[in-house]
Amino acid sequence: MSNRRHIISILVENRFGVLARVSSLIAGRGFNIDSLTVGETEDPSLSRMTIVTRGDEMIIEQITKQLNRLIDVVKVTDLTETTHVERELVLVKVSAPNPQVRSEIVQVVDVFRAKVVDISGATVTIEVTGDNEKVEALIGMLEPFGIREIARSGSIALGREKMPRRVAETVRAA
Amino acid sequence: MSNRRHIISILVENRFGVLARVSSLIAGRGFNIDSLTVGETEDPSLSRMTIVTRGDEMIIEQITKQLNRLIDVVKVTDLTETTHVERELVLVKVSAPNPQVRSEIVQVVDVFRAKVVDISGATVTIEVTGDNEKVEALIGMLEPFGIREIARSGSIALGREKMPRRVAETVRAA
Repeated sequence: MSNRRHIISILVENRFGVLARVSSLIAGRGFNIDSLTVGETEDPSLSRMTIVTRGDEMIIEQITKQLNRLIDVVKVTDLTETTHVERELVLVKVSAPNPQVRSEIVQVVDVFRAKVVDISGATVTIEVTGDNEKVEALIGMLEPFGIREIARSGSIALGREKMPRRVAETVRAA
Repeated sequence: MSNRRHIISILVENRFGVLARVSSLIAGRGFNIDSLTVGETEDPSLSRMTIVTRGDEMIIEQITKQLNRLIDVVKVTDLTETTHVERELVLVKVSAPNPQVRSEIVQVVDVFRAKVVDISGATVTIEVTGDNEKVEALIGMLEPFGIREIARSGSIALGREKMPRRVAETVRAA
């Protein structure tokens, strides 16, 4: 339990150098970041950073406190503590030297509800979205074909809302 | 043409502080980053960073040169110059106070081939993947409902492969 995966969501002011300040703080603590994303939000003056990291609960708490002290940081949430929706986007280019291999790849893609987004005489490029487990499973299935290139967005996440019982039942019935 | 959107893909050594060094270099040049992602690659010793930025061609060229000089940087590619597949992942939580609004939102979601990933008595959370244009269009359509929260992965991209004519024809016919 001491090296649990944490998803930390940080709302920051959209200012020059904020990414450098946040990443220096984390690097200074010798922290290992699995992934990091920064993107715009509903408010043009704010950006949202999502960091996936592994570490001892106490160290994570320290980092969270220090992040909260940075002047650019509006809010830090450790989503690991709450129910949340987590998704990652991955593009994978695999070797596909002939039609038979291509069709084998397409079969794997279909099972994972992934998508072929580019195809050439020698390669197939696949897009997949899902939680960490699904994405890792698909990459594992594609490895035997020979992975040429991969680009991963890193995880993004939003907290789940509490659902009143009546709605929950309707949704489950659907 | 002087403020064109650039997608820069950077292959870096997976070392402590590399993100801090790269983002300090960019911040030091007063560069405006639209989005940035860092994730693992097919090689555990390497990470791939994807940066979306806007700027004068000459300044972009300077940044690219300076990035290439960083010891952690293995390769810098400005994908804007080549054909490429670009995708972004977005989670959007919108207000949906009643079943009628919920069904209006689901109609928009279907048109964009997006997905509902969470639903509560008061909100609907949507997942969408696409290029910048598609993602912006969907967000625009959801704005009137009231956007509560948004998490964007930022763009990731891979270069397209050249396709021999015979394969191109088969794919188009499919």
